[in-house]
Amino acid sequence: MNKNIFNYKKNNSKRIYLTSENGIKVGMKEVSLQNGNKVIIYDTAGMHAEEDYKHDINKGLPKIKENWIKSSLEKHGEFKTQLRYAKNGIITPEMEYVAIRENQGNTDPGNAITAEKVRNEIAQGRAILPANPKHPECEPMIIGRNFLVKINANIGNSALGSSIEEEIEKALWAIKWGADTVMDLSTGENIHQTREAILRNTPVPIGTVPIYQALEKVNDVVEHLTWEVYKETLLEQCEQGVDYFTIHAGILKEHIPYALKRTTGIVSRGGSIMAKWMDHNNKENFLYTNFKEICDILKKYDVAFSLGDGLRPGSLADVNDAAQFGELKTLGELAKIAYENDVQTIIEGPGHVSMEKIKENMDLQLKYCNEAPFYTLGPLVSDIGAGYDHITSAIGGAMIAWYGTAMLCYVTTKEHLALPNKDDVREGVVTFKLAAHAADIAKGHPGAIERDNEMSKARYEFRWIDQFNLSLDPERARKFHVEMIKNSDQDYCGMCGPHFCAMRITKSIKKE
Amino acid sequence: MNKNIFNYKKNNSKRIYLTSENGIKVGMKEVSLQNGNKVIIYDTAGMHAEEDYKHDINKGLPKIKENWIKSSLEKHGEFKTQLRYAKNGIITPEMEYVAIRENQGNTDPGNAITAEKVRNEIAQGRAILPANPKHPECEPMIIGRNFLVKINANIGNSALGSSIEEEIEKALWAIKWGADTVMDLSTGENIHQTREAILRNTPVPIGTVPIYQALEKVNDVVEHLTWEVYKETLLEQCEQGVDYFTIHAGILKEHIPYALKRTTGIVSRGGSIMAKWMDHNNKENFLYTNFKEICDILKKYDVAFSLGDGLRPGSLADVNDAAQFGELKTLGELAKIAYENDVQTIIEGPGHVSMEKIKENMDLQLKYCNEAPFYTLGPLVSDIGAGYDHITSAIGGAMIAWYGTAMLCYVTTKEHLALPNKDDVREGVVTFKLAAHAADIAKGHPGAIERDNEMSKARYEFRWIDQFNLSLDPERARKFHVEMIKNSDQDYCGMCGPHFCAMRITKSIKKE
Repeated sequence: MNKNIFNYKKNNSKRIYLTSENGIKVGMKEVSLQNGNKVIIYDTAGMHAEEDYKHDINKGLPKIKENWIKSSLEKHGEFKTQLRYAKNGIITPEMEYVAIRENQGNTDPGNAITAEKVRNEIAQGRAILPANPKHPECEPMIIGRNFLVKINANIGNSALGSSIEEEIEKALWAIKWGADTVMDLSTGENIHQTREAILRNTPVPIGTVPIYQALEKVNDVVEHLTWEVYKETLLEQCEQGVDYFTIHAGILKEHIPYALKRTTGIVSRGGSIMAKWMDHNNKENFLYTNFKEICDILKKYDVAFSLGDGLRPGSLADVNDAAQFGELKTLGELAKIAYENDVQTIIEGPGHVSMEKIKENMDLQLKYCNEAPFYTLGPLVSDIGAGYDHITSAIGGAMIAWYGTAMLCYVTTKEHLALPNKDDVREGVVTFKLAAHAADIAKGHPGAIERDNEMSKARYEFRWIDQFNLSLDPERARKFHVEMIKNSDQDYCGMCGPHFCAMRITKSIKKE
Repeated sequence: MNKNIFNYKKNNSKRIYLTSENGIKVGMKEVSLQNGNKVIIYDTAGMHAEEDYKHDINKGLPKIKENWIKSSLEKHGEFKTQLRYAKNGIITPEMEYVAIRENQGNTDPGNAITAEKVRNEIAQGRAILPANPKHPECEPMIIGRNFLVKINANIGNSALGSSIEEEIEKALWAIKWGADTVMDLSTGENIHQTREAILRNTPVPIGTVPIYQALEKVNDVVEHLTWEVYKETLLEQCEQGVDYFTIHAGILKEHIPYALKRTTGIVSRGGSIMAKWMDHNNKENFLYTNFKEICDILKKYDVAFSLGDGLRPGSLADVNDAAQFGELKTLGELAKIAYENDVQTIIEGPGHVSMEKIKENMDLQLKYCNEAPFYTLGPLVSDIGAGYDHITSAIGGAMIAWYGTAMLCYVTTKEHLALPNKDDVREGVVTFKLAAHAADIAKGHPGAIERDNEMSKARYEFRWIDQFNLSLDPERARKFHVEMIKNSDQDYCGMCGPHFCAMRITKSIKKE
């Protein structure tokens, strides 16, 4: 296990812990600057980033939530979801953790995220706090539009197989670059063991798409899928500790004709599977007809719904059409049922959307879905960016996050073309972290712009080391600079050279 | 001279010519699809992209505008700027060329760009058509918010020197990936010869920042700059055929105190030079005080103003402040004077701007500057993207272009860190082409979304070759796909593999 991938020390950083009034310790990243200042940053690395921590993948991470789960159970008599606690006016340790975490060291009380605010947002269904007690290694985090915008990275072995250890490394690699959640989209052999290993070794919520495993159980024959196989799969994954499930319960028989008229049909794997199943069996979507029972299962484990958009547009030609918005309305109905059943819920969104149509997506999602958090894939603002679709989607992602989307699913440079390698995952995660951060700034999230301001001061004072360490990818920034300048004590950069540095010239005016 | 960099044939593409009613031949790129369809795309490559064209850098490109310039002169008695012709109601051959070019093969008459529309936009000062008769190798193009969004790529040797041939290759490399104009920011030795070689060998407008060369003439001592040296430099560059000049005439003595209070001071090289000069000499900016004479020079050569934003914010901390908007107002006054003097004008804009403040930049620019075209550097929506600032700026660039910016200056991955290499130029140009194209779609520009629609159809039909060739970077798209799949006849991609392809499953529904 190569734990050195985190190596905060190299970037003058370390994992620190802030402590709440009630003694809850919240992990953060602290960057020490050359001028003696310290900057506290939201951190998803968990104990992996502690300097002295020795990780054993067979033992997994310490179960940091174990005592909270136990004490909540003792205190309240029976297991409840975070949504139920929130509705009851109870602030859980998890909510307290999240409040401190979201503040990122912000000390302005007028602008602070309080535990009560966290509770209230969850109680209203405007935010979720993934909290399967079977994943006690996971640090509490929150997804909602009044909090920091989160990003998800997808990993997963292909049918061609890769080792379990490699899959854990992929997950930690995504987390190193800033992934807030990881979706395990593994298929093929060892799917159960791979997921188990990922859950035991990651400090972030893990999401899955259970239909993939259910389909494998019926040898990839869509027509043979049954509610029973699916239900068994849900229970299996709940027991393992999965934190949220993508469930394509909103695509209905009545939507299919609209989808078949499209330029690119159905581009969601789960959506196409359910459409095929409905068409062949001439029955309504069994995820829809059994929705109440799914709620009962998810409620028992506090697993959150990520209601899948099986009919998201796969091209600008299909955007905001009857198929897409028809399904969105159904997702809204289901979100209400889930809410009434105390199951936390987010709603998945598109896809390919040209810029002028993005706002409508956000507005209708809020309207139809009772303000449940929106979780989008991009959106991609053009179809012709093949090889650069991390950028096509980061443009749309930043915009929709500013408009109110709570979490962005990353897209890599290989989208539409191939599976991402390690470099692609890094590039994709950092790109989406950037989009999410730009939205945090635009929304005025506490503590968001402070890091940028520290960066700008470092820039004006030619503190190069600080510029690297405050960047989203310190290693890349350092590499680019050092290749050009060789050392980092210069009061100019490689772009303009010593004679043409505008900031240097400005300072020479100040001195006079 | 490696002319193979264009090699359209490899991508089933070729340079074709559309002919106007009056016999004007307009170069375009035509992509032949596997299904027999053809897609016509805006093309900046000029004759370099013709299959049989043999280029000789010592001879330069053929002078395609020579006859038009001559006939206009004969017909109208004396040399006039495109703006003067437009005001007089005259449609020049250049305007006719531009109209056909902008349509990109669009055949919907209700949505077509007409030569009269081109003339009118220029006459109103809402668009410019760079047209220095001393650069007759340049293909006519238009910059204005009611036309396709354009992008500029900066090149230029450093003080450390690079060969003239290398500089020409850099320019053509940027053009290959889609640059609409190129700014030559060369400094150091051979500055005159380098510019000469670039002008003779490029089919796009070339811009410069004359203060850089003027400063070299006084041995880099800012305090020794004079109007006379500057004027001599302007005349030298006009005679060579430069199409537009960045001139920092809007930064005034009264603005400097505001700039010195900033987090990052002045980040424009030209702006800092003028501020330093004013401060030392305790005089008003000589570009401002001699503005009328500059107009007279530029008018004589139909060189366009690109009024430089010496006080653009270099950090989110400094955005939309008194320094920035003070200068913008002055730029607006100067734009009016230039317009009255028949000199075509665009206005340069920021910089670092968080998303929620972008619209205000666009709105005020239109208001203060009489709707003269806006030409922005990004804007970057965060300060912490070092190593990824092509993306930070593409997010802001796409948004401001949608809001109305006419041209985007590209930013590379090396921004703030080092000079870009060839790969960085390619990545930067394609990224900005994507941002510009996304804005064209959002604005509904004729012919813009058609390419995306052809791409989506190719996607749904698994026409992989077409997908590559319709992409902004066919070579990269092909490479990513082939690495994974080996051949391109498969009806699935490397992301989902054969069993999980949503589009394949959708089609199996259609068949039933």
